[in-house]
Amino acid sequence: MLGSMSSLIDVDSAGIEKLGRPACYALLRSVPIGRIVFTEAALPAIQPVNFVLDGDDVIIRTGMGSKLAAATRSAIVAFEADEYDADTLTGWSVVLIGRADAVGDEPERRRLATLGLTPWALGERPHYIRIRPEIVRGRRIPTRPAAL
Amino acid sequence: MLGSMSSLIDVDSAGIEKLGRPACYALLRSVPIGRIVFTEAALPAIQPVNFVLDGDDVIIRTGMGSKLAAATRSAIVAFEADEYDADTLTGWSVVLIGRADAVGDEPERRRLATLGLTPWALGERPHYIRIRPEIVRGRRIPTRPAAL
Repeated sequence: MLGSMSSLIDVDSAGIEKLGRPACYALLRSVPIGRIVFTEAALPAIQPVNFVLDGDDVIIRTGMGSKLAAATRSAIVAFEADEYDADTLTGWSVVLIGRADAVGDEPERRRLATLGLTPWALGERPHYIRIRPEIVRGRRIPTRPAAL
Repeated sequence: MLGSMSSLIDVDSAGIEKLGRPACYALLRSVPIGRIVFTEAALPAIQPVNFVLDGDDVIIRTGMGSKLAAATRSAIVAFEADEYDADTLTGWSVVLIGRADAVGDEPERRRLATLGLTPWALGERPHYIRIRPEIVRGRRIPTRPAAL
């Protein structure tokens, strides 16, 4: 459906559609897994996480003492989700950039606990991280022309 | 198959298996898409790319004047690939960290052109980037015990 809107959307010279913010959030809501991108010991780091949206914010859960919790404390992070189809060579990617903060407020933590965010890995994961996006970017590779 | 090897592999308290280097490369070879993680204008950046392996190195193709080409020039980057199954809540992720360099040598570029690396987005993409991994890490969430 988004593909059919390509004439209304920015398409760059490589045929990549730039997606507007509503399309980005619609795609984010369609997948259970994203990836948080941060810096750890001065090196680029990335970790897949499951997540939920709370309004426009991304909420993830991790262990209280985890490296992820430590490395993302009040840091600017990126959050990415994507989906690709190797048969049709199509796909999309959405990237949010914003500040990550631990959720310390107890009533807020209890509310987030009702959002259905269950980490896939086992173990206690009582720490919530909220990412408040300041930049939202999405790109989509639509169906190629048949001639290619 | 890797799941059945869990007793031979490091498993942390969250039930996540740490994978050895050969398992990491076997998984990398099983997917067409990865994500390159870098820094752009002092912000964390991530971009999905298709890739091939050349020995232990990751090779990607991009446009000569692309932001990706500029931002990854002689930079330390991360490269990540993963796969998740939302039905079984299982999955794996492999992260390489190393230096990215443009491939300038013509004979080398001609050899890389034979590796079957076709960017999914259209447009001219004559620029090759080689990532030489110094760190290779893999994690896997195996099948959960039925009781959970």
